[in-house]
Amino acid sequence: MKLDKLVGDRFKERPADCVIDSHALMMRGGYIKHVGNGIFSSYGVLRRVTRKIEEIIRQEMDGIDGQEVLFPVVMPASLWEESGRFESVGKELLRLTDRNDTQMLLGMTHEEAAVHLVREYGQTYAKYPFMIYQIQTKFRDEARPRGGLIRTREFTMKDAYSYHTSQEDLEAYYAKGHKAYERIFTRAGLKDVISVASDSGMMGGSVSHEFMLLTPIGEDSLVICSHCDFRANMENAESVVKNEAVSSADVLTKVHTPNTKSIEDVCTFLNLPLAQSCKAVIYQKAKTGEYVIIFIRGDLEVNEAKLTRLIQDELIPAVVTEESGLVAGYLGPVGLKNATIYFDNSLKDTGNLCCGANEADHHYTGFNIARDVENAEYHDFAKAVEGGICPTCHKPTLTLSRGIEVGNIFQLGDKYTKSMDMKYTDESGVQHHPIMGCYGIGIGRLAASIVEESHDEYGPIWPISVAPWHVHLCCVRAADPETKALADKLYAQLQASGKEVIYDDRSVSAGVMFSDADLLGVPIRVIVSPRNLKENCCEVVTRDKVVSEKIEISQVVSFVQKLKDEMETTLN
Amino acid sequence: MKLDKLVGDRFKERPADCVIDSHALMMRGGYIKHVGNGIFSSYGVLRRVTRKIEEIIRQEMDGIDGQEVLFPVVMPASLWEESGRFESVGKELLRLTDRNDTQMLLGMTHEEAAVHLVREYGQTYAKYPFMIYQIQTKFRDEARPRGGLIRTREFTMKDAYSYHTSQEDLEAYYAKGHKAYERIFTRAGLKDVISVASDSGMMGGSVSHEFMLLTPIGEDSLVICSHCDFRANMENAESVVKNEAVSSADVLTKVHTPNTKSIEDVCTFLNLPLAQSCKAVIYQKAKTGEYVIIFIRGDLEVNEAKLTRLIQDELIPAVVTEESGLVAGYLGPVGLKNATIYFDNSLKDTGNLCCGANEADHHYTGFNIARDVENAEYHDFAKAVEGGICPTCHKPTLTLSRGIEVGNIFQLGDKYTKSMDMKYTDESGVQHHPIMGCYGIGIGRLAASIVEESHDEYGPIWPISVAPWHVHLCCVRAADPETKALADKLYAQLQASGKEVIYDDRSVSAGVMFSDADLLGVPIRVIVSPRNLKENCCEVVTRDKVVSEKIEISQVVSFVQKLKDEMETTLN
Repeated sequence: MKLDKLVGDRFKERPADCVIDSHALMMRGGYIKHVGNGIFSSYGVLRRVTRKIEEIIRQEMDGIDGQEVLFPVVMPASLWEESGRFESVGKELLRLTDRNDTQMLLGMTHEEAAVHLVREYGQTYAKYPFMIYQIQTKFRDEARPRGGLIRTREFTMKDAYSYHTSQEDLEAYYAKGHKAYERIFTRAGLKDVISVASDSGMMGGSVSHEFMLLTPIGEDSLVICSHCDFRANMENAESVVKNEAVSSADVLTKVHTPNTKSIEDVCTFLNLPLAQSCKAVIYQKAKTGEYVIIFIRGDLEVNEAKLTRLIQDELIPAVVTEESGLVAGYLGPVGLKNATIYFDNSLKDTGNLCCGANEADHHYTGFNIARDVENAEYHDFAKAVEGGICPTCHKPTLTLSRGIEVGNIFQLGDKYTKSMDMKYTDESGVQHHPIMGCYGIGIGRLAASIVEESHDEYGPIWPISVAPWHVHLCCVRAADPETKALADKLYAQLQASGKEVIYDDRSVSAGVMFSDADLLGVPIRVIVSPRNLKENCCEVVTRDKVVSEKIEISQVVSFVQKLKDEMETTLN
Repeated sequence: MKLDKLVGDRFKERPADCVIDSHALMMRGGYIKHVGNGIFSSYGVLRRVTRKIEEIIRQEMDGIDGQEVLFPVVMPASLWEESGRFESVGKELLRLTDRNDTQMLLGMTHEEAAVHLVREYGQTYAKYPFMIYQIQTKFRDEARPRGGLIRTREFTMKDAYSYHTSQEDLEAYYAKGHKAYERIFTRAGLKDVISVASDSGMMGGSVSHEFMLLTPIGEDSLVICSHCDFRANMENAESVVKNEAVSSADVLTKVHTPNTKSIEDVCTFLNLPLAQSCKAVIYQKAKTGEYVIIFIRGDLEVNEAKLTRLIQDELIPAVVTEESGLVAGYLGPVGLKNATIYFDNSLKDTGNLCCGANEADHHYTGFNIARDVENAEYHDFAKAVEGGICPTCHKPTLTLSRGIEVGNIFQLGDKYTKSMDMKYTDESGVQHHPIMGCYGIGIGRLAASIVEESHDEYGPIWPISVAPWHVHLCCVRAADPETKALADKLYAQLQASGKEVIYDDRSVSAGVMFSDADLLGVPIRVIVSPRNLKENCCEVVTRDKVVSEKIEISQVVSFVQKLKDEMETTLN
């Protein structure tokens, strides 16, 4: 199409409210327009990209025997009451009432609808396994939408649901789903995506993986072993700490440590390394207000997700009142009352620690859990650290990275089929609940992630597979009839050879033309100009600047074809 | 794909709650599942159909220079407050509040979002004309969803918006849009679609057309001239009535007409034809309660849409109280007070009528408006009638039909650009509001309409262009190895030749196989069976029963190709 007909404005200034590059470039390039908090409209350029992404996803889902279906955006609350999620999910589930005062909700995920659709179909074992998926608008009432399309409230998502009669079958299919996801990201041009074991949170189930694009702007914290295959979300990464047993045990001694409320302060005061201290971290349970205190080695941090999983309740920051009987800043395990106490694994095999004495301005030294505490309960609460010990290969080779979650897959088990009473009859006439997997990819977030990974300061560098067009044809100085005639001819020839071409024949400077082209990020650029014409050639450059050649006019179409073929080859 | 893997149940019994055939067949064939009032999920079969419909629509929209965009489903109320529609639209607009108590709404149409998206882009005349469209989920909180996918609350819709700097340009584009719509319906296999002038209602604007599939189950009433091109929605059809002037005027005479509250009763009592009476039809204005009385020739009915347009208020059925001073059943124009009075054009040039005398059990005869009423105000209020006079060719050749609205196009004018202050600067630096057109098609309703027009008692008869598959391959007696081997081979060959094939190799009776095939409605069926095999042939039959031939095995693929080509040719 002609660039002068492309709806959407491009501009140079980075909008002040854009924190990350994909957001800024998508605003500057006329890809999106902000409609409301976490809600965007897409212009034609982005829709061309998302349609290509959708098509890649469709092909890969069909390739693992998926059947595309469509679930409603607006669902009756009664459907989610069957699974219990109408109650259990928080404010991110947008609830509403219709004209008849029926409770409804906006779908943020579709497990319930997916079970509802196949509950009758899947009544006999012979129908299994099967998988259904949709590409549909979803709404999730996020408290803090951010980063343009990275975290929106309304988004288009591909969500898939598979159904199985055995864990083995689910696992086999799950592995196929994992491979399909790898292919999707590869085909969409993402390079730095890894899959990590994750905490499946409100989705239920146990085994799950997140596909993470490694990028400094990611909101997820990842733990990756540089020596073996271990990789996990911080929330899920086991912390392995090895302490050397103390050679001689000191006596438990109360010492005066004035104004040392933090573990750093007391260790400085006592001239001890942090690792030789027993730090207290205090929370309250959201429902009951009950205090929960974690003791952990002073140089480590508590991973709250691990604690939440253990206590099965939400945590709130603790407010330590006078009535509580707790002495904030001086909490220690010896003689502590009025709280549930857990010890982190990092305190195993330690001795001669300092710890709070439950008395203002006092700590103990020479603390030894095995000796001084009855029935200490140890769990893994600690956050993994850079250079920490890998739980798989046991080498001190853990690294921390940040990532954007570009997809996730879950082994749901029978959470939904049980609560919604979906059953099949097996070969011997016995009824069971089938087990499920589910598989999600956000389309808009994927587009934004591609930009995050592949851009320069001037604009996105779209991979050929998802680029809005294959070729950006620039006619510099269209007022010159010969130049314009050649550009028109190339426009026709390139289209005839099956290329999607955006054609810029505006009467603007080469500077404006090229900065617009940069913002559109089309991988192959063909430049026709009077100067090139004199040499009987065109410039053909790639958006990633790898190629920049003068090509004889008669060879342009075939050269572009070759470039496109090469680009496509790298995405397989 | 293999039929035994197709997710969805097919069954024989017509569901009791299905009034129309498309609804029943889509339920019976495993196309849709009811999720809530006016809300459905689509199974894979239907999704295959709707995707093909969407693709046809995309091609035609792109063909008239449309750019596909995407607007949000959930929009802030503030956007609709700009146009005034957040207030003015009734309960069909579903309003809700998000977690921050911000007023939101579910998009039932996207004029506001469309203006919002291009308000900055369209600031200069040089950008015009342009058109943007989306294919997106919408929600309209219908009071009475009905007929399966014919009238749902949630639906997928293609909606397009065009922008122009002159009425001439809008009209020229509108004509292109009209043609594109004709092509869409033709390509989707609909035969009996006509476009009719329509009342644009809440959309604003003046000129608009509805594309109507003529079918007895349609909820719209249409007026079509069998002699000329005139066609209109009943709500919009001008009623033309010609009365012969009376030769001699009778004297206005009050007569005793006991118990004759209806115009039929009084005409019977007085032995007059209905056409010689002046009937009163009484309403109240919704806002003020004010009475509005329409006098109309006794043989005609009032078209309330016309009255609503005139008085610019909603009408409610009148409650005639004693205090009103009105005598229900005996209302007449002579001496009538306490109401706004209008006369229908059908009473022009009449005389010697009977009419109510505003006194119980009494009427007048010899009534003559010109003589007996001061300042009578005439408008067109009457419903067109079968055999009525065509407003265009003036022949008594009007026919009444029923139709399903499968698409509509509107000349919106500047309603939205004015209220939302979208402006462009013209060549001379003067600012104007651009004018808009809009163009809608419901995808699900279109699919259901195709079934309504093209089905038999056994299932849909899908046109090749939108059929879920091209070929339905039946292997009758798959237990026979030779038969199975041939069917497998044909499955591969047909797919290799570019056909979408649904392959039924289940161990079921031919009866079950064929009734399933009927419900899936695939246009070309290839039947492999031991009996056919003996004759070295297959049966190839079309779903519409036009073709039923035994074809030599080696010729099957090419014969299927020929059939498909022929079917496609008829859809151009």
